Amino acid sequence: MSPASRFTYLGPEGTFTEAAVRTLPEAATRELVPMVSVPAALDAVRAGEAAGALVPIENSVEGGVTATIDELASGEPLMIYREVLLPIAFALLVRPGTRLEEIKTVTGHPVAQPQVRRWLAANLPDALWESAASNADGARLVQEGRYDAAFAGEFAAATYGLDVLVSDIHDAENAETRFVLVGRPARPPAPTGADKTSVVFWLREDTSGALLEPLQEFASRGVNLMRIESRPTGEGIGRYCFSVDCEGHIQDRRVADVLMGLKRGCRAVRFLGSYPRADARPATLGPGASDEAFSAAADWVARCMDGRG
Amino acid sequence: MSPASRFTYLGPEGTFTEAAVRTLPEAATRELVPMVSVPAALDAVRAGEAAGALVPIENSVEGGVTATIDELASGEPLMIYREVLLPIAFALLVRPGTRLEEIKTVTGHPVAQPQVRRWLAANLPDALWESAASNADGARLVQEGRYDAAFAGEFAAATYGLDVLVSDIHDAENAETRFVLVGRPARPPAPTGADKTSVVFWLREDTSGALLEPLQEFASRGVNLMRIESRPTGEGIGRYCFSVDCEGHIQDRRVADVLMGLKRGCRAVRFLGSYPRADARPATLGPGASDEAFSAAADWVARCMDGRG
Amino acid sequence: MSPASRFTYLGPEGTFTEAAVRTLPEAATRELVPMVSVPAALDAVRAGEAAGALVPIENSVEGGVTATIDELASGEPLMIYREVLLPIAFALLVRPGTRLEEIKTVTGHPVAQPQVRRWLAANLPDALWESAASNADGARLVQEGRYDAAFAGEFAAATYGLDVLVSDIHDAENAETRFVLVGRPARPPAPTGADKTSVVFWLREDTSGALLEPLQEFASRGVNLMRIESRPTGEGIGRYCFSVDCEGHIQDRRVADVLMGLKRGCRAVRFLGSYPRADARPATLGPGASDEAFSAAADWVARCMDGRG
Amino acid sequence: MSPASRFTYLGPEGTFTEAAVRTLPEAATRELVPMVSVPAALDAVRAGEAAGALVPIENSVEGGVTATIDELASGEPLMIYREVLLPIAFALLVRPGTRLEEIKTVTGHPVAQPQVRRWLAANLPDALWESAASNADGARLVQEGRYDAAFAGEFAAATYGLDVLVSDIHDAENAETRFVLVGRPARPPAPTGADKTSVVFWLREDTSGALLEPLQEFASRGVNLMRIESRPTGEGIGRYCFSVDCEGHIQDRRVADVLMGLKRGCRAVRFLGSYPRADARPATLGPGASDEAFSAAADWVARCMDGRG
Repeated sequence: MSPASRFTYLGPEGTFTEAAVRTLPEAATRELVPMVSVPAALDAVRAGEAAGALVPIENSVEGGVTATIDELASGEPLMIYREVLLPIAFALLVRPGTRLEEIKTVTGHPVAQPQVRRWLAANLPDALWESAASNADGARLVQEGRYDAAFAGEFAAATYGLDVLVSDIHDAENAETRFVLVGRPARPPAPTGADKTSVVFWLREDTSGALLEPLQEFASRGVNLMRIESRPTGEGIGRYCFSVDCEGHIQDRRVADVLMGLKRGCRAVRFLGSYPRADARPATLGPGASDEAFSAAADWVARCMDGRG
Repeated sequence: MSPASRFTYLGPEGTFTEAAVRTLPEAATRELVPMVSVPAALDAVRAGEAAGALVPIENSVEGGVTATIDELASGEPLMIYREVLLPIAFALLVRPGTRLEEIKTVTGHPVAQPQVRRWLAANLPDALWESAASNADGARLVQEGRYDAAFAGEFAAATYGLDVLVSDIHDAENAETRFVLVGRPARPPAPTGADKTSVVFWLREDTSGALLEPLQEFASRGVNLMRIESRPTGEGIGRYCFSVDCEGHIQDRRVADVLMGLKRGCRAVRFLGSYPRADARPATLGPGASDEAFSAAADWVARCMDGRG
Repeated sequence: MSPASRFTYLGPEGTFTEAAVRTLPEAATRELVPMVSVPAALDAVRAGEAAGALVPIENSVEGGVTATIDELASGEPLMIYREVLLPIAFALLVRPGTRLEEIKTVTGHPVAQPQVRRWLAANLPDALWESAASNADGARLVQEGRYDAAFAGEFAAATYGLDVLVSDIHDAENAETRFVLVGRPARPPAPTGADKTSVVFWLREDTSGALLEPLQEFASRGVNLMRIESRPTGEGIGRYCFSVDCEGHIQDRRVADVLMGLKRGCRAVRFLGSYPRADARPATLGPGASDEAFSAAADWVARCMDGRG
Repeated sequence: MSPASRFTYLGPEGTFTEAAVRTLPEAATRELVPMVSVPAALDAVRAGEAAGALVPIENSVEGGVTATIDELASGEPLMIYREVLLPIAFALLVRPGTRLEEIKTVTGHPVAQPQVRRWLAANLPDALWESAASNADGARLVQEGRYDAAFAGEFAAATYGLDVLVSDIHDAENAETRFVLVGRPARPPAPTGADKTSVVFWLREDTSGALLEPLQEFASRGVNLMRIESRPTGEGIGRYCFSVDCEGHIQDRRVADVLMGLKRGCRAVRFLGSYPRADARPATLGPGASDEAFSAAADWVARCMDGRG
């Protein structure tokens, strides 16, 4: 297939990311290519070898996926066009016949570990955890006999000829991972009324109040923040950029206005896209935050300039 | 002369306001009509009987002239087109022959009293003060023999056949009064680079933090406030509107943006004009506050909407 | 009587201030002395010639009484111990026999004028207004025949042998004047649960955001502002101090904390007293604003210092 | 040795954390015990099996070490008593004789990967990266022949019988890792004048402006933030707590005051300690932020309560 019909994703096959990419309606008609890392998945898009990449960006237990956040904040610009929410539950996969009490070593992706830690402490207190490059890779290593058990998605069992010894393991209730479909910059999808906008900004100064100002740009227009991640800029300890998601679409006047405020007030800003919310929940707007209020205010100022205020 | 060539001012003749109106270059070719009160001077403009009215708006000792501030905030809209600053110094006017030690009663406008209070306490501790309707009216009452002395502008002596017993009386150093030339709404004078914008806003709520929001509209765009007056709205104790002057012109992007923010966030806003500063001092702009920064931010958001951010 | 049993008030007799002072329970046992001006009433207290002075501080139509606000902000410190709210309604007083259509000149205190302006425009459009030193003084001038009618409190009619031609005149609904009982500094009255605290502060800088900081001291402790007045400091146009009333008593932890914040962050602060609210309405406290929350927070920090956080 | 003389650290031996723990003066007299994970190192302290644990908390390239931040924010309380800053530079370790062009597979801790990514792309573009449980573990796996090369500290070469093929590899200039020495809660070390305080807070609400309030607690006391990390609370996507470091010591009045403000305004706060800054740089205090200003403000309020303000 041509690059235009190809989606990369954080592989290998059998991971939650593959499960997520398969929820996309267009996945059926695309070539889905697993990549060894988030940077690799995104670089394929940058290089024009794929139309999009599906990568995890946030996990309700572990927090932001820093590789994704940092990749989106640097290098050749990319944009988010879609998000996918996937509930997280692990299965404990073993070679056929293995019993729970025989498990001495377990593996899985480093991100999986804190999500099954309590289950491990309760059920396999003496098992030694060693991280694998991915949950699927952990399954493969169990298949090869290097570990006794792996935490992975239940769907990975078949691929690696393993049995599901325990299913639906998750320390936290309501744990979920958020994935984003990333492409080269283009016109954002049309507003749906329930949208989200992602942006990264770098503060002009690194003082106490410096973060207050960009946050007030959001607050003063009644634009709710949905995610905020501080990330080091790499310029030394204490220097940060902030990756945020807010309610609304860049075509919503209040969001455009916030973005302009950030552009003026920050050292740098990178627009990461406006796209439909996976939960389809429309933003609740305070007075003065609607497009109508913005239009009315702009009209009024124009009239004032003409002496007809 | 026609109404178009008529300026009213807060009379009577011989007051500081007349001195102020005479500083206007166009005063030479206008009919200058003293009025009995600020409302009367402004209503003549509203009624089309005069092209402009010169009224005091602020005094560095006494504060805002509430009659002017309240008239501009209510009734048929008016706009400020010019400001005049006049240093304040009083002369003690007496009937020819009166000596200081003979003065038992003094008069003057109520606004004059706090500006000469200390001088009075030091030089005429026993003299009884009674207010007159204006400084000039006080001079007239001295002429008529009702009081022994009047505080007024030195220029009023001739008009009323009085002598200047003491001149240059002012308790505070640098005391000055600010006057504004008010007309019916029209296109504001072009920006000069050293302008001022006046506006009145009514808060949506009367809570602790409610004033914070409009003030942050100014602060977040780096627009300096030069005057802020809280005024009762007449809806009961504790309900206020705020009359403010800020640096800049409505055609400055940052000022237009502040006005839009006020329009959206406040219960009501009234634009009172953009006009040259009497002190001709240009505003100092922080980073992100210039027209260029605003244009660049708007351009950037437009490009982001097209996927070219 | 001794100074200790003497109250001064803004005279002369027959004004609203006298009506207000007579609402005080202790008025019955005090000598009530009218003074010619607010400064005179307050200076008598400063000089130890009176135990207290009752003066107007705020009017729901005209706003702050600047003489009172400025006197409390400067000179020898004074404190507020009580407040009195009086609904404002004027009577039109005339010499017996005068008919409405015969009235050519009216008088009254300058503060009365804006409160009867609309009534005048509707009922006596051609009458000439001239200000008197007080409403009572206006009544006296009518008695003497200098004016045809005076606006004053109905209670002033008897004193000056006048008739009440029209009563209950007030342009604004719910108009009221607030008076304060002022004394030399002493321990404030005990908290009642429905108290008010008055304070004046001078900003460290006169920049755009400078007023934001003291306002945030109030907002961040959930202390509601009830009055805010900007007043010129006399140091030149654009230099202000702010006179505010807030909910609560200095013995309420949140109020003490706000005062400490103002003390640290402002160029100067003057505490004007904590006293019972005339409307006896208790403050509504947000979470974290109660004395308990403050104590708990202080206890927690103390425990943290001991390693028992 | 007894638990009291034991320090755990994030092992295994040969990692940067071991290098960091050895910089502590008391390390010479302590038993230094490597642990398999941050939670294990900290749990040993919680269980009384060690007096302290040295763990990484922040990296100028990768950002916060989430395992450490999350462990300190939850479970049995712990406190930070010391910090260590270590410049980050990797060595490429190989089995004796291996040449650069022979390297097909490289390993190292996941945190090392982004710090050598550019070096890898430039020098070993085709080498396959696979993560190891630690840098030292990567070295061990090279020793065992599973990978061709490992990124680790130069000091690890000897332990595993490897050669340093390339040294001083670091993509970012000035890269450094910050480690903290953690113990059970006790009285913090005495203020040195150049201290840091760590705290975690949970917002009361998850709205747009909610983060503004705690940040203003810092800003309004002039307390500089040095690190801010948003972390998911585990209650679902969009719910965060914030882990911050600020300048100053809990015994500094301004810091104690911030902590009280957080305690009152936040859903929860956890004090993580006050300890000397590794860079020994004293905080720069604005006006009103010194202990003297706080004492003076408290004294003034106390005097006001007594009528002697």
